[in-house]
Amino acid sequence: MHTYSENKIKAYQQENENRARLLIRCPDQPGIVATVSQFLHEHGANIVTSDQYTLDPEGGQFFMRIEYECPDLLKKKSNMEKDFSLIADKFEMNYDFMYVHDIKNVAIFASKEPHCLLELLWEWESGDLMANIAVVISNHETVREMVESRGIPFYYIPANPEIRKQVEEEQKKILEQYDIDLVVLARYMQILTPDFVKEYKNRLINIHHSFLPAFIGAKPYERAFQRGVKMIGATSHYVTDDLDEGPIIEQDIGRVDHRDDVAAMKKIGQEIERSVLSRAVKWHLEDRIIVHGNKTIVF
Amino acid sequence: MHTYSENKIKAYQQENENRARLLIRCPDQPGIVATVSQFLHEHGANIVTSDQYTLDPEGGQFFMRIEYECPDLLKKKSNMEKDFSLIADKFEMNYDFMYVHDIKNVAIFASKEPHCLLELLWEWESGDLMANIAVVISNHETVREMVESRGIPFYYIPANPEIRKQVEEEQKKILEQYDIDLVVLARYMQILTPDFVKEYKNRLINIHHSFLPAFIGAKPYERAFQRGVKMIGATSHYVTDDLDEGPIIEQDIGRVDHRDDVAAMKKIGQEIERSVLSRAVKWHLEDRIIVHGNKTIVF
Amino acid sequence: MHTYSENKIKAYQQENENRARLLIRCPDQPGIVATVSQFLHEHGANIVTSDQYTLDPEGGQFFMRIEYECPDLLKKKSNMEKDFSLIADKFEMNYDFMYVHDIKNVAIFASKEPHCLLELLWEWESGDLMANIAVVISNHETVREMVESRGIPFYYIPANPEIRKQVEEEQKKILEQYDIDLVVLARYMQILTPDFVKEYKNRLINIHHSFLPAFIGAKPYERAFQRGVKMIGATSHYVTDDLDEGPIIEQDIGRVDHRDDVAAMKKIGQEIERSVLSRAVKWHLEDRIIVHGNKTIVF
Amino acid sequence: MHTYSENKIKAYQQENENRARLLIRCPDQPGIVATVSQFLHEHGANIVTSDQYTLDPEGGQFFMRIEYECPDLLKKKSNMEKDFSLIADKFEMNYDFMYVHDIKNVAIFASKEPHCLLELLWEWESGDLMANIAVVISNHETVREMVESRGIPFYYIPANPEIRKQVEEEQKKILEQYDIDLVVLARYMQILTPDFVKEYKNRLINIHHSFLPAFIGAKPYERAFQRGVKMIGATSHYVTDDLDEGPIIEQDIGRVDHRDDVAAMKKIGQEIERSVLSRAVKWHLEDRIIVHGNKTIVF
Repeated sequence: MHTYSENKIKAYQQENENRARLLIRCPDQPGIVATVSQFLHEHGANIVTSDQYTLDPEGGQFFMRIEYECPDLLKKKSNMEKDFSLIADKFEMNYDFMYVHDIKNVAIFASKEPHCLLELLWEWESGDLMANIAVVISNHETVREMVESRGIPFYYIPANPEIRKQVEEEQKKILEQYDIDLVVLARYMQILTPDFVKEYKNRLINIHHSFLPAFIGAKPYERAFQRGVKMIGATSHYVTDDLDEGPIIEQDIGRVDHRDDVAAMKKIGQEIERSVLSRAVKWHLEDRIIVHGNKTIVF
Repeated sequence: MHTYSENKIKAYQQENENRARLLIRCPDQPGIVATVSQFLHEHGANIVTSDQYTLDPEGGQFFMRIEYECPDLLKKKSNMEKDFSLIADKFEMNYDFMYVHDIKNVAIFASKEPHCLLELLWEWESGDLMANIAVVISNHETVREMVESRGIPFYYIPANPEIRKQVEEEQKKILEQYDIDLVVLARYMQILTPDFVKEYKNRLINIHHSFLPAFIGAKPYERAFQRGVKMIGATSHYVTDDLDEGPIIEQDIGRVDHRDDVAAMKKIGQEIERSVLSRAVKWHLEDRIIVHGNKTIVF
Repeated sequence: MHTYSENKIKAYQQENENRARLLIRCPDQPGIVATVSQFLHEHGANIVTSDQYTLDPEGGQFFMRIEYECPDLLKKKSNMEKDFSLIADKFEMNYDFMYVHDIKNVAIFASKEPHCLLELLWEWESGDLMANIAVVISNHETVREMVESRGIPFYYIPANPEIRKQVEEEQKKILEQYDIDLVVLARYMQILTPDFVKEYKNRLINIHHSFLPAFIGAKPYERAFQRGVKMIGATSHYVTDDLDEGPIIEQDIGRVDHRDDVAAMKKIGQEIERSVLSRAVKWHLEDRIIVHGNKTIVF
Repeated sequence: MHTYSENKIKAYQQENENRARLLIRCPDQPGIVATVSQFLHEHGANIVTSDQYTLDPEGGQFFMRIEYECPDLLKKKSNMEKDFSLIADKFEMNYDFMYVHDIKNVAIFASKEPHCLLELLWEWESGDLMANIAVVISNHETVREMVESRGIPFYYIPANPEIRKQVEEEQKKILEQYDIDLVVLARYMQILTPDFVKEYKNRLINIHHSFLPAFIGAKPYERAFQRGVKMIGATSHYVTDDLDEGPIIEQDIGRVDHRDDVAAMKKIGQEIERSVLSRAVKWHLEDRIIVHGNKTIVF
């Protein structure tokens, strides 16, 4: 499977050698779209898709994502970036050029429950998750086999609140070693320190097993059962220092009824968790998400 | 429209003259189903649908709803009820016989926003809500015309926290006058006193404009917008003394995204509120709901 | 209610005096976005939202919808349109300028079943359907009262296949008299002649009570029941000469199970029909739909 | 993983040693429920769940599924079955006793696309599919590794319409060898002969990649794209001799829009196919499905 996935990714990189994405965020003002599209046109780039959004009530912020094709992109890109910096200065832009052939390196943190990890591995095996799953780190041995059998390095690092700092030091070393762009907490269930969160700001995605802000914190299915809700959900979000309060990327729900006990809710919930996390990770990999304060714009 | 609805209801009553529902709740033990179905068989009743549920972990509670047809039901029913009381004693049952031709009298409490009231009126006009909408009470004049034009009595009773007791006295008089079985709070937006809540226990349905327990209390759409959720919801529940904490009957959700401001969320939410409240009211009218502690069993 | 709706619409028109939409369709080529956005910028217009789509495999068609604000729009608009025609010529554009304060005149064709008509009337009463519902025409008297009580002219024109031509002559006269922009078939159930369809091309919306292309033609709920499907749906589409084959605007579905007979399916289906038709009509009114061949692009 | 799954299944068998299901189908008549529940009570069995349904318009057919617990079930069961045959004769019942600890032997037929096979394997690995996946047969080598690495026997049998009979002879031999109770066509894409279909009547489940009866036959995603639908679906059904016309077990749908080309529709569709097939197989394994004519009753 590993080979299958690798070949799919290589083919994808070749097909998309000339494709890039430009993400922009700046104060709203006249002429932004005209200037940016003129810039791309002059550099021989053709806009494939373009999305924009203006957040009025909170101070006129403008957000844009442009995906474009440009012949000989690899040769031209440094020049284009230099030229664009003048425009960016003028409009006070916060911006990123992302090149599709630069496949992101992903680390997955897992614990005992394998369903979210397995969904990501499986999407990756099928060639539907265009990333390099570089490493899996877990505080349990449970998932070692399913990781290593796919040719992915696995690190077992036991964790608990007392040794948090030390655990994170080990984790960070590994993340640096594999040059990780994105960390996915696939039901990792451990709280991270503010230092760690800061270092991976907007590059650290969690799945919470409730429809946030309902059931923040531990044991959401147990509490959903106690409350007698008729739907349960899952929420994928970027991690911040406030537990389960980071910018929400995606949510979904499923129906339950009085016959569903906690175990049944968990099973229904796991299917929701899998697909919600998988969508959130894909959107991040496709550079579709702009974080603004405590919210996400998903283009 | 009024006549259309009245004719539909009369036809429904005639068609269902011999139809009844038996709701049972008792400690679980062997032989309940055998005994009850034998009882119905001996009295010439034919079971049309039957649902049961046993809640194991919390003490072995047994719940059952049987809908049956019985020739000459109206003549037989008092005898059947008397005979059944022996069975009920033996199994320590909490039970209700409900007769389908006994159409329930419903009062709707409304405020300024008409969408939930309108949905109920409209379902009723179409002959899809088998109830007698006997009276509408509102603390605003806004909806008077849409109520009176349908031939339904309308009472305007201004309300605010200071005069709560006095307002409720007036309301109770009206509810008694119309012999009300069910009170529906169709976005009434006023808190009721424990006395009122107690008097209409399990007969007082509210619609809350959030996916409870998220956004309990005031201004849920504003808070959903601030939190950046990707879905909003509505919850219909029986009212208890704890604000928005009563037994949930039904919930549903709709998707929103970064483009939706508070006004857009409200519009999306109103469609959800309408259908969630309407389903909850119908299930109550069809005697499908058994309240157990802070939860509902919906058969 | 009529007054309420009228006031809402007037307020909406005033708020949106300077707002317009530009819909473009042309062969794909470099520089379109740059040129159009430059044009708007030079004329003092600020882009509020912009959506684009390129249909690659079928010949490189480019589609765009821009919503913009422009001070003194009413004074400037004829000049802008003239200036734009040069750009349009260069890029071989098919385009439309739509001004938000030009509220569209809508005629609704109804028959016996009122649910779709009522939904539209109700959305309109609530100020959520920004149109002038100018007239309702029906081949049955059933809905007269609900139309006239809202102050909307109602015309009863009996219809059957034999007198189709003559019926349509009468209908067309009324449509001209009220200067109708959009005709909505709210479960009208009569087939229209090719002449009529041609005259209202892309301005004639139907709701079909199945998930097309399943159950094309008559009695879809009966056939859904016979087939034993687990979901039923509704489809809103522009009408063409081929029965139920026109460009689909919106679809939705609901769950059914073995307990649902044809009557139950109809009730479940009616709620779906209502919301699907209502969404399709709103999108048309907001100039979100571009028809391309037998498909729609909905921005 | 194999061991994990085996242990889960063994634990499940032990837990459910005393649990059985009784499926009944007979002409409707008074006293069925009373008689059956009396029978179970007398034999010391306690009803855990019970579902019934009466199909009125088509001749008064009665359907029932009872799940019960009975101490020493394994010792008692042959006696119970013998005693029950008298009741069955009296009511002209078609019935089955199913014992939960009798885990069903499942064969999966696959082809090139692995997603449906993988979902089933994965659910099985997680202990969520309570079956013995005894063998996988495919007309391509693609999935060999993912099957064998899980310790499941894999047979490669090339197939095409010309050699259908001969291929099926080989397949049948294998199915007999493994004592197969259920055959799942996980996107097998080959038509089976009437003989084969007859032999596995109501034990042969297929997944069709469209919302049947829309897009019966080949290339449904291509045709959905051509038609411009706004939703695509998947349908799981028992196989009959009429292509894609067998009794539907489960369906689901997902939203698509104009941006989704055939490849995108396939990806969206694959996720739907996976979950629809998985639900259908689980319901079959849990003895929840009764086939009646060309429909299913799913309790």
